[in-house]
Amino acid sequence: MSAASFARLPAPPYYAVIFSSRRGADDQGYEQTAARMVELAAEQPGFLGAESARGADGFGITVSYWASEAAIAAWRAQAEHRVAQESGWARWYEHYEIRVARVERAHGKAG
Amino acid sequence: MSAASFARLPAPPYYAVIFSSRRGADDQGYEQTAARMVELAAEQPGFLGAESARGADGFGITVSYWASEAAIAAWRAQAEHRVAQESGWARWYEHYEIRVARVERAHGKAG
Repeated sequence: MSAASFARLPAPPYYAVIFSSRRGADDQGYEQTAARMVELAAEQPGFLGAESARGADGFGITVSYWASEAAIAAWRAQAEHRVAQESGWARWYEHYEIRVARVERAHGKAG
Repeated sequence: MSAASFARLPAPPYYAVIFSSRRGADDQGYEQTAARMVELAAEQPGFLGAESARGADGFGITVSYWASEAAIAAWRAQAEHRVAQESGWARWYEHYEIRVARVERAHGKAG
C-alpha cells in the first residue's frame, strides 16, 4: 500500500478507523513499525484499504477501511499483541485520537 | 481552525465527512476558497470540528465532524451554492473521494 494513494473500496456500508496523530521527537524505529502495522492490517480478513497523509508539521491522518467491526477488533488484537506492545508504539505520538465509524455513503471524482 | 490540530469533540455518536484528495497543478484561488469553505462550515449549526493533513506529494485527508446528517446536508447545500459552484472548486483536484460515516466509538491519548 502506498502512503499516498486512494483506497479502492466496495459500495457502503463498511467501517472506517480514523486515526489522527501528532508525532513527537522520538523517531527511533517508527518507520519500520508503522510499515509492519500496515502489513498486518493488509493480511487481516476484512481489510478493505487505507489512506494516509502527514504534513510537514507532524500532524497526520490515516483512515483504514474494514468490512465489519469484527474485522477491526481482530486486527486490533493482532496489532496490539504482535507489534504495539513490543515496541511501545504509543510513545511515538504526543497525541492521538481514534474514531471508529460506519461509512454510509460515498462518492467521488477520479481523473 | 488551524489546519493541523485536533478537533475537540463530544462523546459519540456523531457524523464524519472524510474527504481524501489529490491536488492538481492549478493553484489559482485555492487557498482563499479552501479557507472560505472552512469558515462556512464553522458557521453552520451542528459543526463540531475538523482535522486536516496534506503531505508534500499533494495527497491530503480532511475530516469534518457534525452533529447530524441534516447538518451535513445543510452545509453541503451552502457550500455548493455560495462557494463551490462559483469557483469551480472541483477543478483543483485531480481526484477526490468523499465518505460520510457515523462515528460510533472514540478514544485517544493526549500529552
